[in-house]
Amino acid sequence: MARVTRLPMAAPDDMRALEAAITDGAIDPAAVCAIFAKTEGNGCVNDFTRAFAVRALRDCLSQHRPQTTLDAVAMVMSGGTEGALAPHALVFETLPANAPAMAGALAIGVHVTPPLPTEAIGRTAQVEAVAAGVRAAMDAAGITAADDVHFVQVKCPLITAERAAEAIARGAPPKTIDTLKSMGFSRGASALGVAVALGEIAPKTLSDAAIGADTALFSQKASASAGVELLGHEIVVLGRSDRWLGPLTIDSTVMDDAVDVAGLQDLLERNGLMAAGRMRPDEANRLVALLAKAEPSTSGRVRGYRHTMLDDSDIAPTRHARGFVAGALAGVVGHGEIFVSGGAEHQGPDGGGPIAAIIARHG
Amino acid sequence: MARVTRLPMAAPDDMRALEAAITDGAIDPAAVCAIFAKTEGNGCVNDFTRAFAVRALRDCLSQHRPQTTLDAVAMVMSGGTEGALAPHALVFETLPANAPAMAGALAIGVHVTPPLPTEAIGRTAQVEAVAAGVRAAMDAAGITAADDVHFVQVKCPLITAERAAEAIARGAPPKTIDTLKSMGFSRGASALGVAVALGEIAPKTLSDAAIGADTALFSQKASASAGVELLGHEIVVLGRSDRWLGPLTIDSTVMDDAVDVAGLQDLLERNGLMAAGRMRPDEANRLVALLAKAEPSTSGRVRGYRHTMLDDSDIAPTRHARGFVAGALAGVVGHGEIFVSGGAEHQGPDGGGPIAAIIARHG
Amino acid sequence: MARVTRLPMAAPDDMRALEAAITDGAIDPAAVCAIFAKTEGNGCVNDFTRAFAVRALRDCLSQHRPQTTLDAVAMVMSGGTEGALAPHALVFETLPANAPAMAGALAIGVHVTPPLPTEAIGRTAQVEAVAAGVRAAMDAAGITAADDVHFVQVKCPLITAERAAEAIARGAPPKTIDTLKSMGFSRGASALGVAVALGEIAPKTLSDAAIGADTALFSQKASASAGVELLGHEIVVLGRSDRWLGPLTIDSTVMDDAVDVAGLQDLLERNGLMAAGRMRPDEANRLVALLAKAEPSTSGRVRGYRHTMLDDSDIAPTRHARGFVAGALAGVVGHGEIFVSGGAEHQGPDGGGPIAAIIARHG
Amino acid sequence: MARVTRLPMAAPDDMRALEAAITDGAIDPAAVCAIFAKTEGNGCVNDFTRAFAVRALRDCLSQHRPQTTLDAVAMVMSGGTEGALAPHALVFETLPANAPAMAGALAIGVHVTPPLPTEAIGRTAQVEAVAAGVRAAMDAAGITAADDVHFVQVKCPLITAERAAEAIARGAPPKTIDTLKSMGFSRGASALGVAVALGEIAPKTLSDAAIGADTALFSQKASASAGVELLGHEIVVLGRSDRWLGPLTIDSTVMDDAVDVAGLQDLLERNGLMAAGRMRPDEANRLVALLAKAEPSTSGRVRGYRHTMLDDSDIAPTRHARGFVAGALAGVVGHGEIFVSGGAEHQGPDGGGPIAAIIARHG
Repeated sequence: MARVTRLPMAAPDDMRALEAAITDGAIDPAAVCAIFAKTEGNGCVNDFTRAFAVRALRDCLSQHRPQTTLDAVAMVMSGGTEGALAPHALVFETLPANAPAMAGALAIGVHVTPPLPTEAIGRTAQVEAVAAGVRAAMDAAGITAADDVHFVQVKCPLITAERAAEAIARGAPPKTIDTLKSMGFSRGASALGVAVALGEIAPKTLSDAAIGADTALFSQKASASAGVELLGHEIVVLGRSDRWLGPLTIDSTVMDDAVDVAGLQDLLERNGLMAAGRMRPDEANRLVALLAKAEPSTSGRVRGYRHTMLDDSDIAPTRHARGFVAGALAGVVGHGEIFVSGGAEHQGPDGGGPIAAIIARHG
Repeated sequence: MARVTRLPMAAPDDMRALEAAITDGAIDPAAVCAIFAKTEGNGCVNDFTRAFAVRALRDCLSQHRPQTTLDAVAMVMSGGTEGALAPHALVFETLPANAPAMAGALAIGVHVTPPLPTEAIGRTAQVEAVAAGVRAAMDAAGITAADDVHFVQVKCPLITAERAAEAIARGAPPKTIDTLKSMGFSRGASALGVAVALGEIAPKTLSDAAIGADTALFSQKASASAGVELLGHEIVVLGRSDRWLGPLTIDSTVMDDAVDVAGLQDLLERNGLMAAGRMRPDEANRLVALLAKAEPSTSGRVRGYRHTMLDDSDIAPTRHARGFVAGALAGVVGHGEIFVSGGAEHQGPDGGGPIAAIIARHG
Repeated sequence: MARVTRLPMAAPDDMRALEAAITDGAIDPAAVCAIFAKTEGNGCVNDFTRAFAVRALRDCLSQHRPQTTLDAVAMVMSGGTEGALAPHALVFETLPANAPAMAGALAIGVHVTPPLPTEAIGRTAQVEAVAAGVRAAMDAAGITAADDVHFVQVKCPLITAERAAEAIARGAPPKTIDTLKSMGFSRGASALGVAVALGEIAPKTLSDAAIGADTALFSQKASASAGVELLGHEIVVLGRSDRWLGPLTIDSTVMDDAVDVAGLQDLLERNGLMAAGRMRPDEANRLVALLAKAEPSTSGRVRGYRHTMLDDSDIAPTRHARGFVAGALAGVVGHGEIFVSGGAEHQGPDGGGPIAAIIARHG
Repeated sequence: MARVTRLPMAAPDDMRALEAAITDGAIDPAAVCAIFAKTEGNGCVNDFTRAFAVRALRDCLSQHRPQTTLDAVAMVMSGGTEGALAPHALVFETLPANAPAMAGALAIGVHVTPPLPTEAIGRTAQVEAVAAGVRAAMDAAGITAADDVHFVQVKCPLITAERAAEAIARGAPPKTIDTLKSMGFSRGASALGVAVALGEIAPKTLSDAAIGADTALFSQKASASAGVELLGHEIVVLGRSDRWLGPLTIDSTVMDDAVDVAGLQDLLERNGLMAAGRMRPDEANRLVALLAKAEPSTSGRVRGYRHTMLDDSDIAPTRHARGFVAGALAGVVGHGEIFVSGGAEHQGPDGGGPIAAIIARHG
């Protein structure tokens, strides 16, 4: 049985809500398998709120379970709480089944892939490694059909100057020696790995050159972020499985562009959370988590209207996109405690992105 | 008869759409009485895109009407096109009546008040001056009932170092010698002037101390911006009057906070633009202009969830709020060509703001 | 005997250089009494690199000395490494005397004051508390004459919403309820406390109203920073004392404005570090640490030339000032590993600030 | 005879000082051949202060000379006045000789090259076009020896989406379709064109691939900026020629990195402006203009010390570098009215840049 708890954070290292939940028995620290959090940095290169939050999370959990077990907990920190986006954490637990069976229950699978050679990053070898990892995480979650997968979060490695030098010395030059660009390539290849694993894209249509370049290739379920602290991939598959129990389920859709909330509205309607065309508070309470990606369209336009996100040298484009998309989604669901992350290479169509909702079926 | 034309801008000085509209006869330069524009600066102190746009607008119009008549055209430039907000201009014309009479037609009134002594800025004397000016603009628009007013845009003066020194030398010290603060005080007093003119607030409840401090006092119809280039006020009243003709009308509502789109949804529904719960493209085409204000709530929270807008030393709070609120509104109306401006002292409730929609009644 | 070690940091939590120095015996963890560091955040409200660095420093030291002794180590983190300012740490140790006696040796005194009531912050009561604390730190350093003090670093408390509410409930309203403003008031009162202790200002000339307002009142030796994590003050006095031994000494001067490097040049010349008008590498090696404050002048001018630091809504004024002043100082000393911090209320003249240099007398 | 006048600017469109100088006879509008200005934008993509200043300058000059002659005036606007950099204009005039002959007088030559095909931008064809243009400007200035050239300012074209599409349609694909990158390539090729014209680099050592990539190739005299408003190049050569008269001269040097002021100190000493190791006010008055380029080093280090300019996602690297380098130079010359511009591809060594000083020989 999966349990997902959403907790507010007053700062990147604020563990009070998590500590209280553990003290109250609302969270079993031993059962935690993944933590996603929105932290209040810029979400770009020099965002240290992510590492600060991870350090605080590990210190907190290590008071309650052995230090050696912490590496098995996938920790996905996403920086950037623009506008009224609220810093918060999503704690995922895998609990023994003591809940009624309900078809389509939320299933969670976590898999960690072995270290990837630096020269594979952003190339088809990474796509294949991630595809294999996604299949393994699906196995771990007990999900067999790709259609039952609704969100795949991948934390992937990047290329540092040192790693690039080591690869070059071995005669295996990496795709780029630019750290920032390598993050985009790694996210993109990871997303394509998800697409391959889920049958969204045929592997043979892929080439090294298409990765990071052909925006027509994308997964509707992938969300990827790159981190300097790992050499392999941490993969969290969220989907539905009849082998799991409990009231939670998950559904997903895609934003076609930054103003496209129709898919989310449809999703909420078909899950009984928007019966009267707008969300009522009791319906909103049953929306346990909303996960989305945001990016400025590379065309410089949204539905024909010019945007200035790519030309603003004062605010990073991803910060613009996160705040605006968060506003669009928050207008629908009534608050800003939403997991909207940026950097959506091959994750949804250009300028849009995947959306997933975790829903409690009887509120 | 009022005509309102929305024009895209590819840069602050891009007059191509305006020139084309004049050439095509879609806009009569002699009939232009006001121009509002969203320009792509930061909307804060060092935003020169506003003055650049004004210079280009005046140069453009002066090719088509006498230079001496330009001062009668209210030009309200609002900087800041965060997220997918699209830079654009709204051109307001007052034309001879050759349209069918329809009850509740859009009426426009422009009034310019005489120069205000520097020491009056941000004090009740400014409130009174603006209130009188709003009444005069209502007269000009042929509007008698306050309820028929739906949006009042006030461009107001500010205190510069030179003006403060002059006032002090006269023995009349101004409310502040801080230019930036004086902008907020002037906007706030102007908004309260609108509130007094429209009967939203009883003048006797006001005091100098309350201006800029008591967020419980506000107008639901006022939008104010301060500019260094004027000493009096340019006031544009938008409302409904049966004396006016033509298909355009106007309606208004208030956002209670940054995620509150219910008022806008209600407005669109009662005007027949959201028949099926969501806007269809033909309905969207009939929404000629959407005007709104955005501000971070001073409480640091939106519906109980923490926001970080006021603590972000990298991005100005108004930029955060504009992008997020624009996202929320764009999610409803389907695009980002919306006039969302910041700096909402006494303009709507704390963290919220007025909204007005100009609507074509037969599309 | 005092020892001061300058260590590079590759990230706010990078403790490799410190660990290596401890391993090599270059630093004795038990002897560490204070650590100053420049971290790579924005140095403003939402700069979490400071707390992140403190957490890493405490974790590192706690491997080498009892956790309970860490509170006695003053940790002063200053965010903001604009331009070519290099992130680094300055580790101060107090060691048993096994060095030759040299007149004017560097002396260090640390004192922690008791918690200050919230309503005292930014008022004369705080000035008095800090003045007493500085005298105690001077005693701890064995310094009797104010002229022998060359730099006083004060870490001071600030007013949070909770603390303000508590004080108001007690019937003791604080000077402000604005957290950011309270930081400036607390820094200013702390600096004036240093000025009083050192005889730079007569206490009777001070009033609550002058604190944070009268820029003519300042200390030439004070450097203050406010932090949310303490209720009293951590005071580090750096000066000269014949009771101390070892090759290190300290000297100080004042920048009159952001381009004034003459005082630093004079200081270096009189200490034999600029024999030929410019620093040679061997001379530069003997400059162990350079400490300075930077602030934009409130006049908007430097030597009559306009600056735009106060009008830039994209970059915080302190970030502008730190980068520029760091450039001016780095041009003299040949590198950017300098401790330049911002927020200089009552710390040096308006637009300028104190400078101190720690020098090894035989290189 | 050349005359150079430095004028303060209170805003990008502030022409008061220029108008006053024309009224006073200090500037002859008909003699103006070039204007350089530092404007207070961000100096990056969305910096509209440059175009705003050009519009104001043209409007101002057109009051005093025929509109049709304005295209012959090179207008080089450089955005970005970080730190205490002061917005200002440098007005260059070519006047009839009524001054005493002095060897090595300042000579100015302006040349405009024909439109360059889009596909040539950033390639050796642009290098050749600029090299020919520099030679023509040298001829115009009456300079024959490359050693007599001390600064070459090139304003060069860039690739827009439209221009790229047109070239692709012709079967001539451009080097990049990314506007921002095309600016760097165009600046780099322009700088290499200067290097070829001045014999700093042998043309045969150049290849398309080296442009924008090989930082070992650079000119010590070139300063380039790209602008959307031109298709050819505006080239201003500043040097010495015995055919010119008057007290002004020019000298140049190179900064090896962001803290390297030794070259400037040497330059000032050999020109008698730093007789006592530091500039006196009367000496500073004789420094009519100081021109420099600034860039963060791509190595991430300055003299071995780490800098964070390239990792800061809140402030553009060029803004960091300009403010810091301006501080270093201002520390030497005593004020911030210096023409420091960013974007130094192939203009000086990586992380450094050319410096030129225009000096009045008898103050």
